Amino acid sequence: MSDPYRSLSLSLIVSLQTPEMAPIKNGRLLFNAVPQGYPVPGQTTVYDDSEKIDLDNVPLHGGFLLKTLVLSIDPYIRGRMRDVSSYPLAYKLGKPVISHGVGIVVRSEDATVKAGDHIYGYLDFAEYSVKPNMQGFKVLKNEEKLPWSVYVGIAGMPGQTAYTAWKEYADAKKVSLLSLPPIFSHRCSPLTEGETVFVTTGGGPVGSFVIQLAKADGLNVIASAGSDEKVKFMKEIGADVAFNYKTTPVADVLKKEGPIDIYWDNVGGETLEAAINAASTGARLIECGMSSDYNNNVPYHVKNLFYIIPKSLKVYGFTVSTLLEKYVAAFYEEVPKKLASGEIKYTEDVTQGLEGAGEAILAVLKGTNTGKKVILVAQE
Amino acid sequence: MSDPYRSLSLSLIVSLQTPEMAPIKNGRLLFNAVPQGYPVPGQTTVYDDSEKIDLDNVPLHGGFLLKTLVLSIDPYIRGRMRDVSSYPLAYKLGKPVISHGVGIVVRSEDATVKAGDHIYGYLDFAEYSVKPNMQGFKVLKNEEKLPWSVYVGIAGMPGQTAYTAWKEYADAKKVSLLSLPPIFSHRCSPLTEGETVFVTTGGGPVGSFVIQLAKADGLNVIASAGSDEKVKFMKEIGADVAFNYKTTPVADVLKKEGPIDIYWDNVGGETLEAAINAASTGARLIECGMSSDYNNNVPYHVKNLFYIIPKSLKVYGFTVSTLLEKYVAAFYEEVPKKLASGEIKYTEDVTQGLEGAGEAILAVLKGTNTGKKVILVAQE
Repeated sequence: MSDPYRSLSLSLIVSLQTPEMAPIKNGRLLFNAVPQGYPVPGQTTVYDDSEKIDLDNVPLHGGFLLKTLVLSIDPYIRGRMRDVSSYPLAYKLGKPVISHGVGIVVRSEDATVKAGDHIYGYLDFAEYSVKPNMQGFKVLKNEEKLPWSVYVGIAGMPGQTAYTAWKEYADAKKVSLLSLPPIFSHRCSPLTEGETVFVTTGGGPVGSFVIQLAKADGLNVIASAGSDEKVKFMKEIGADVAFNYKTTPVADVLKKEGPIDIYWDNVGGETLEAAINAASTGARLIECGMSSDYNNNVPYHVKNLFYIIPKSLKVYGFTVSTLLEKYVAAFYEEVPKKLASGEIKYTEDVTQGLEGAGEAILAVLKGTNTGKKVILVAQE
Repeated sequence: MSDPYRSLSLSLIVSLQTPEMAPIKNGRLLFNAVPQGYPVPGQTTVYDDSEKIDLDNVPLHGGFLLKTLVLSIDPYIRGRMRDVSSYPLAYKLGKPVISHGVGIVVRSEDATVKAGDHIYGYLDFAEYSVKPNMQGFKVLKNEEKLPWSVYVGIAGMPGQTAYTAWKEYADAKKVSLLSLPPIFSHRCSPLTEGETVFVTTGGGPVGSFVIQLAKADGLNVIASAGSDEKVKFMKEIGADVAFNYKTTPVADVLKKEGPIDIYWDNVGGETLEAAINAASTGARLIECGMSSDYNNNVPYHVKNLFYIIPKSLKVYGFTVSTLLEKYVAAFYEEVPKKLASGEIKYTEDVTQGLEGAGEAILAVLKGTNTGKKVILVAQE
């Protein structure tokens, strides 16, 4: 039996003890319409500040309340801007866009996490959100005191994407100089004796980490990106051949610098076709993304699929979630330390505030960002 | 210093000892022109009986003379009917078509092989041919007294194609009934508890062996072929679902009977697209052939390549030559015995004489053959 007077008196006591804040604005970026080509900020996504949230009283139902600090903008976001009936992972119309982020716990009813903890995982594009439990989330210790934004970049999903699939599928072969007759050690080519990898979107958080992993494995690296600034960065982190695909045709570069033994595909389409043409027998194609197709209603017609057979190509599609469990412990053990020491390098391109998230998504899809795109939603 | 009289007297002695046969016709099927679509017998290939061969005196240069007994007609032959400048394995214009065959050694200067031995390997489409050495050839013992034609079919390259790639790439998972709670063992579906494979050209020598390998591994088998006769055969060898793709759309069958965990692709194109749509997460696509594209100048536009990524598909192109060494001993140990015992079943469609080889190639490409197509070139 409920006792209305008892409830009333309890809430009065609470309000006397901790003065309640009024509900505040909870800005969100909502998925508003399936884009026909590129998403249109203000139309396919809409920034909405009509929702209010009462941080003290919003019911947690055993979960916890998060304040969003940083959100990650990645090309795969476009892949989820689909009709939910055709693609189970599609965003729901009228609901916030979702991507990886870091938040700080404001209140918690979950014993495994407490106020002040920093949490990494899929977050709503919202200033605040309530999560039912810790499933899919990780508490970040950050003993290296890295900026939190790094944990959605090279120390987060993009970095894990590069790290896990490289370890799982690259099968990188470094030809040891010691195992070759002396004559081979006087090779004239600037390239080393290892296999050759072609990395697309090498200026981004995934591709730039792949370049560094490949160089650490002793491979020759050909890398492409869409701006001269990114080309400069790719050379700084070790790419042997780096080029701007907007000014130099991929097929020409691969014809000159190939054949390639590994292809890291972030773009698909015509570039995938060029890579298949340039692939050596037994090459591995690691299919991470097909961003060139994300904004086309009809994808590019890859006309040389047949060569998969005579060239004995292995094509590995993957999403990081399916590989993460196997490598996650090694990743968090190794990567933050190497970032702190400077052994692994990265770049960032920061947008301040959720209001700019729609434009930030478009920038990443058009490749006009200058580094790993993150949204700084709030300070701690 | 040469002595013409000594040479003359020696050849006289030879002709006295073994009466020489006159040179005889050496019928051949020559590659005459790159087909634009389907090959045209008499035009893209030409049967030529103008060459004569002197079986007693043709120089062997340390090699051996073969009489061709059987030749194999396989879809991949169309793949080699290309411009040699674009495809290194293309047939040379004006030279015989080449495929696997069995021949009997007529004469030999090679110590590793003797007259009367039966040899398996790549043979010219010619009644007789001289080979420089045994590289790429194998002496067949045939202790099971199988018809020699079987050694170019299910006990030859097509059988090896099925056997090696299935063992290497299928990663077939049979869900054991013992590991499931009792309720699952009362499943209503006629399908078993194992994974599901979709096999194309299941009536052919490769596909029909794949069906039998998959059933031996406890899988559910969906199989397609291009005639009701082949559908009947596929059911006889264990296919759970068998259909004629010419009368029943592949996509409809896969929608009803899928999802599929393994796809054995012999056809590519629209069927590959349907298989990608029906593939489960983590499915393996074994790319053995893309026969639907062989006769098209512009291959079918596979429009859903992107799903390779979210579905974590593994696509394995292969040619049997790259896998054979690992499995060849087990293959010849296991397969002829199981053929002799009837545990493995096969069908044959025999063409008598090289004159019909051009039509036989066309029949295989159009799918009008009724079993593994072989050319019986000669009796022993």
